Amino acid sequence: MENTIFELQYALDTFYFLICGALVMWMAAGFAMLESGLVRSKNTTEILTKNVALYAISCTMFFVCGYWVMYGGPDGLHGAVPFLSGITGDGKDLGDTYAPSADFFFQVVFVATAMSIVSGAVAERMKLWAFLAFTVVMTGFIYPMEGSWTWGGNAVFGMYTLGDLGFSDFAGSGIVHMAGASAALAGVLVLGARKGKYGANGSVNAIPGSNLPLATLGMFILWMGWFGFNGGSVLATASVESANSVAVVFMNTNAAAAGGLISALLVARIMFGKADLTMALNGALAGLVAITAEPSTPSALQAALFGGLGGLLVVFSILLLDKLKIDDPVGAISVHGVVGLLGLLLVPFTNDSSSFSGQIIGALTIFIWVFVTSLIVWFALKTVIGIRVSEEEEFEGVDIAECGMEAYPEFTNGK
Amino acid sequence: MENTIFELQYALDTFYFLICGALVMWMAAGFAMLESGLVRSKNTTEILTKNVALYAISCTMFFVCGYWVMYGGPDGLHGAVPFLSGITGDGKDLGDTYAPSADFFFQVVFVATAMSIVSGAVAERMKLWAFLAFTVVMTGFIYPMEGSWTWGGNAVFGMYTLGDLGFSDFAGSGIVHMAGASAALAGVLVLGARKGKYGANGSVNAIPGSNLPLATLGMFILWMGWFGFNGGSVLATASVESANSVAVVFMNTNAAAAGGLISALLVARIMFGKADLTMALNGALAGLVAITAEPSTPSALQAALFGGLGGLLVVFSILLLDKLKIDDPVGAISVHGVVGLLGLLLVPFTNDSSSFSGQIIGALTIFIWVFVTSLIVWFALKTVIGIRVSEEEEFEGVDIAECGMEAYPEFTNGK
Amino acid sequence: MENTIFELQYALDTFYFLICGALVMWMAAGFAMLESGLVRSKNTTEILTKNVALYAISCTMFFVCGYWVMYGGPDGLHGAVPFLSGITGDGKDLGDTYAPSADFFFQVVFVATAMSIVSGAVAERMKLWAFLAFTVVMTGFIYPMEGSWTWGGNAVFGMYTLGDLGFSDFAGSGIVHMAGASAALAGVLVLGARKGKYGANGSVNAIPGSNLPLATLGMFILWMGWFGFNGGSVLATASVESANSVAVVFMNTNAAAAGGLISALLVARIMFGKADLTMALNGALAGLVAITAEPSTPSALQAALFGGLGGLLVVFSILLLDKLKIDDPVGAISVHGVVGLLGLLLVPFTNDSSSFSGQIIGALTIFIWVFVTSLIVWFALKTVIGIRVSEEEEFEGVDIAECGMEAYPEFTNGK
Repeated sequence: MENTIFELQYALDTFYFLICGALVMWMAAGFAMLESGLVRSKNTTEILTKNVALYAISCTMFFVCGYWVMYGGPDGLHGAVPFLSGITGDGKDLGDTYAPSADFFFQVVFVATAMSIVSGAVAERMKLWAFLAFTVVMTGFIYPMEGSWTWGGNAVFGMYTLGDLGFSDFAGSGIVHMAGASAALAGVLVLGARKGKYGANGSVNAIPGSNLPLATLGMFILWMGWFGFNGGSVLATASVESANSVAVVFMNTNAAAAGGLISALLVARIMFGKADLTMALNGALAGLVAITAEPSTPSALQAALFGGLGGLLVVFSILLLDKLKIDDPVGAISVHGVVGLLGLLLVPFTNDSSSFSGQIIGALTIFIWVFVTSLIVWFALKTVIGIRVSEEEEFEGVDIAECGMEAYPEFTNGK
Repeated sequence: MENTIFELQYALDTFYFLICGALVMWMAAGFAMLESGLVRSKNTTEILTKNVALYAISCTMFFVCGYWVMYGGPDGLHGAVPFLSGITGDGKDLGDTYAPSADFFFQVVFVATAMSIVSGAVAERMKLWAFLAFTVVMTGFIYPMEGSWTWGGNAVFGMYTLGDLGFSDFAGSGIVHMAGASAALAGVLVLGARKGKYGANGSVNAIPGSNLPLATLGMFILWMGWFGFNGGSVLATASVESANSVAVVFMNTNAAAAGGLISALLVARIMFGKADLTMALNGALAGLVAITAEPSTPSALQAALFGGLGGLLVVFSILLLDKLKIDDPVGAISVHGVVGLLGLLLVPFTNDSSSFSGQIIGALTIFIWVFVTSLIVWFALKTVIGIRVSEEEEFEGVDIAECGMEAYPEFTNGK
Repeated sequence: MENTIFELQYALDTFYFLICGALVMWMAAGFAMLESGLVRSKNTTEILTKNVALYAISCTMFFVCGYWVMYGGPDGLHGAVPFLSGITGDGKDLGDTYAPSADFFFQVVFVATAMSIVSGAVAERMKLWAFLAFTVVMTGFIYPMEGSWTWGGNAVFGMYTLGDLGFSDFAGSGIVHMAGASAALAGVLVLGARKGKYGANGSVNAIPGSNLPLATLGMFILWMGWFGFNGGSVLATASVESANSVAVVFMNTNAAAAGGLISALLVARIMFGKADLTMALNGALAGLVAITAEPSTPSALQAALFGGLGGLLVVFSILLLDKLKIDDPVGAISVHGVVGLLGLLLVPFTNDSSSFSGQIIGALTIFIWVFVTSLIVWFALKTVIGIRVSEEEEFEGVDIAECGMEAYPEFTNGK
């Protein structure tokens, strides 16, 4: 009897992981739609190709080496057995409380999320194959190393353990989102702005997205997928306590996104006099990033306020980055990086097991590691194969140069 | 042991609520895609903005006051504790059989559905901020009051209790869909038709939607989300009886949508001589609305027939409304209002606990309450801030006037 | 107590079936988006109409007769009781371990998948109503007969039983995908190529898809839905063993799709010198089809390799079919037929209960049955009502001829 109850708990927790993982996988579609809606039509095929390829590469690299780097060697990793040996295994005998493959599946979709963030920021002027080469290093090594210091529990270069310092990042405001944004920032700095984005006289030229329904769809997909992203990070649901926690996480994730959207919409209205749809979309995403570091301890009211703070911050961050001539076509660095940091700093307000100093040290560790290693990789790629398309190709659109096909061959009017 | 079994039931029911809630949240994307596909490209950014903003406002208002209005004061509402206090709580001690936050999450996404219905009907000529102001009142007060008389179980103005009269609305053909349509009808009457829709000589000018793949995607999203909408309304799944009921609801929801689609496709073929895609999409949605009042008692055959009846009715209703010069660009009043009423009237055929008189009294209560209060709010908004854009803005498209950006800046050809 | 544990297992397995079924239903949206993105804009409304209508017809026909044909008469089919009688039934008393209606729901969405495959291959020149007439026969008779010999366990024409011969097809590489492709091949042969596709001098003219973000979205939807397609085919999840199996299936399905995408992207790069997005999309789908015949026994590494083989094969198959002047606008015959066969042949490498001879006999049985019966039906339709639009209608686009409305009335530039 007890055995059967254990079996049911195991089955329910496994199923919960798999469904949450499928929702996170769905976020890959969200990033693809968001980014392809926010770039110009002449650069759409290429950003779609980047998004589908980075997802496939992320899944493969994490499987080949990332998971091992992040969670230790084979000894500490019996969970990894099934996906190498083909033995489905009876995790029970090994002390698991859910299927090892379900854990891997959930983890692997997280890697792809981190990498998706980069693709938007470097849009409209980067070489496709250089980007994919970066993807290999980022998902096979840079992200997993950083993940081993945080969720993996390893000491940073054997020097200090983030958990002991009071660092806490529930579902990855820092570990996933700020990490992705740090790699993106390094890429944008090496790459430079798009031609025509910044005028000689300090003017900033708006380059509107070519397909706002797609961008909106992408935001909705991400919002939906985020229930799996945060909800699955409770790591169990088959008890009253964990079920309550998962439910609170779903509720707060929703409340934070709503708060972020409303706040960005209002702030943009006050500043620009119009209802700015793209700011509203980024506001919702900012709300989601802000709550991701700790969605389980705030009340829904606090979650909505934290999200609202994210929505406020993202508008100013996007404007500031343009002042600094850091050209991020989709606002990814602001949404995931700046607001990711905010998310980390909000944790200690509702979670006593974390501390501000711990959050700051953790944020610095993640940022420095990812930014510096990414910078090295971007420079190496720049030297060896080049990372930027020619000026002519950029003018013509990277779709023809890189992919040989237009995204909308019958619609575009040459603008 | 018994305790553990209780924990598992609690966990499974909670997870089921959360997944169903996530599916209903997804319907917000469905409405956004459906509506943006059915309007002209010059009004697309604005309808997207309305859809994302109304979802965020609905979630926030229901949290701030709607849930309390609908389900009673703090005493009757321990379920509300977690989202205000941040205590995850042990619902078990309070007699709950699933996480209180999961209940809130499921309820909150319903509110947004009701409001989404309004946005389509008033498309292409309403001021954005007037619409959002209406959203605040509708989701914070009008809908919750009506909900308190039905699912909340309160007597209507202390006069009569709908349940006692034999009113039954399983998942909300009336409570959600007809309610949304009633508010929409009031809005359309105050607002008037789009310029150029109706000729002086009684002619009706078709204004085709600008992006039918988007509209089709929206229909599919709604169909999928409806499994959560109806399936979650069983309110439990962790027993043989409730699991069977949820399964029947999924099967019947699917059958009814299929029936509605086929019937609308055939009727339109007979009447217009062509396979009318937009009628087929509205037919599927009509099938879904028709079965929503009672998806658990019909056989699949009955469900398909009920859906087919909905698909038939919606074609004639759309034509009739145009004859009456009630201009509803996406057919929302027909799909959700007229067929919502049909759904209520079909309940007594398969559910003995309901009566025709109860259904009619319930429908009248919902319609009169929502229509009259909405009319008052729309008039008040018209007087205070105005609800209709200028004739010039309408001609130019509300996207530029209200949002300052085009949805497809590179595609449109000025038609 | 034991009774309650049984109830929980029953409830969890039922819920798992329903969620997997909803994911498979979602694949209908995936096919609709994929196909409408890959055809020209003048043929988009019609392919959308075909996709929504075929889903509705499939669901209805399977309910009316297909399920009975596939799984035996009323005696063997107590599971069918609920959807005819309206009795929810207590499946428990009948020895069921999950809700009968959930089984029906899961099965019915599979039928639609098989039929969706056909619609892409015959795009841009077939008459809509002839296609829908074929849909009725395919989903009500051709597919269910073939299904009765495989998943239904019946002897083929009373002559031999495929299972006894060592045939194994876990989730339908052959039973669903190759079957759909066989019907599609018959249709394409009877129908002929699109005007202008093949030049007199043996040249092949590329006809680019009109909306690649839609096609990409379709691929992502299919990828996500496939977790339900393969994952649900384990048929149970409420024990450690079945939960492990479902988890392995999710992991392997993801790995195979990733492998297929990467392999097709690289092969196309080597052959054409560019990153070919449509080949990458078809590569991912080929990876999914390749693993579908056996996603539970390979290791993740094997799954990625099998998927990669599928991605390789699909590129060459698409090129070969064009050499043979078999005009398949979306590559459906290659993705689902050729790679479906590959999937069947890969099973014996990891699953000892299958044999190569069994797989070959099974594949031949499916192909011959579906191809021959389809051919007869296509010819009959050609004779009676005609299956191809006039040359003028094809030039103008089937949207106006068949549906009377353009998909993008404001965008297209007459190309």
